[in-house]
Amino acid sequence: MAPKYKLIYFDSRGRAEKVRMLFHAAGVEFEDTRIKGEEWPALKDKMPQKQLPVLEIDGKTQLCQSMAIARYIAREFKMYGKSSTEAFYIDEIIETVNDLSQSNIQAMFEKDEARKAELTKKLIEEVIPRSFGFLDAQIKKYGKNGFAVGSEVTLADIIIFNVTEAVKRREAAETFPNLKANLKKTEEHPKIKKWLSERPKTEM
Amino acid sequence: MAPKYKLIYFDSRGRAEKVRMLFHAAGVEFEDTRIKGEEWPALKDKMPQKQLPVLEIDGKTQLCQSMAIARYIAREFKMYGKSSTEAFYIDEIIETVNDLSQSNIQAMFEKDEARKAELTKKLIEEVIPRSFGFLDAQIKKYGKNGFAVGSEVTLADIIIFNVTEAVKRREAAETFPNLKANLKKTEEHPKIKKWLSERPKTEM
Ligand SMILES: N[C@@H](CCC(=O)N[C@@H](CS)C(=O)NCC(=O)O)C(=O)O
Ligand SMILES: N[C@@H](CCC(=O)N[C@@H](CS)C(=O)NCC(=O)O)C(=O)O
Repeated sequence: MAPKYKLIYFDSRGRAEKVRMLFHAAGVEFEDTRIKGEEWPALKDKMPQKQLPVLEIDGKTQLCQSMAIARYIAREFKMYGKSSTEAFYIDEIIETVNDLSQSNIQAMFEKDEARKAELTKKLIEEVIPRSFGFLDAQIKKYGKNGFAVGSEVTLADIIIFNVTEAVKRREAAETFPNLKANLKKTEEHPKIKKWLSERPKTEM
Repeated sequence: MAPKYKLIYFDSRGRAEKVRMLFHAAGVEFEDTRIKGEEWPALKDKMPQKQLPVLEIDGKTQLCQSMAIARYIAREFKMYGKSSTEAFYIDEIIETVNDLSQSNIQAMFEKDEARKAELTKKLIEEVIPRSFGFLDAQIKKYGKNGFAVGSEVTLADIIIFNVTEAVKRREAAETFPNLKANLKKTEEHPKIKKWLSERPKTEM
């Protein structure tokens, strides 16, 4: 029998959206549980790392760590490349996107005004062009028909799409033709397109 | 013919040591290139993301992003678990360790004294106990004979060992019996033990 998946997170895209998108892209059913702020304190201590997201399988196993969950789901549903080398290129993209997110979070949460300006400048003038330039080059070398790695939708496409939403810098991708085409490809993937049109609209 | 591996990094453990340890644990030859600070400016622009580490294969392909390289090497040399589920538990450990490192780096580099004290308190009283407690429980559930996941050395053992060196909190692991036994097991793995005894002594 097919496993029963229940994804638990808050009512936002945040760290869960990549997993939701993978389930939708794969056409695999899952329960998209979105808990309210006031429900969290009671639930927190029941979670393996006292954090969300958590993926429950068959009401028993509780998996945590969003990127580990995403990799697992991608592997189970054949969206992690067709070889060890393709899996490497996907991982390399994930880590590149991680560095970019980290740099964005740092700038966003910095309280000292001068330091914040410095971090924002670094993000915009250095980190985004370097990361987007790298992604663009990789997509050109290792992707086909607009996909990031290989000729089918993978975890890499979803991670790239998500980060441009999260850092709110979609426009910065406009000058990178392969990255731009890749974002369009992901958005127009029929199953992803359907999800994007019907998912709850949330701020983050 | 076996591929020729050349790992390029600075003369420190840093982000390269997990990859070095994997090569040694697997008993696979590689060139351990350690460049000097003064050589870096000239080399920087030749690197795909202008950063290190980079793994060169057969003098052609340049792989970057240390965690993607580590996963690739672990996959190639059968140190990434025996199933998709084992690979998940390894990834879950990696992400847990990542959160811990992140929290350590934040506290280390914070310049505001009051904020630094707060972050250090959070690291020591909250993040380390939670992470080490989680690792301890996972090792107990999913590891055998002292290994973290399954009954052989994997990427997980090496990542756990490295983080306790990097955050300099080896002593905090003493109160977690499974984690403590796991660190000992890694240290005493004959090939790793040999490397630990002969590797260059560096500060970081
Ligand atoms: N590395 C973890 C981080 C998880 C995390 O930070 N979760 C936050 C929400 S994004 C959380 O649960 N916050 C509530 C809390 O800590 O009480 C992951 O990617 O899953
Ligand atoms: N996420 C990357 C980060 C790489 C990174 O930050 N490298 C640093 C050394 S640890 C570097 O090359 N610094 C020199 C520079 O940026 O010029 C990885 O894990 O490989």
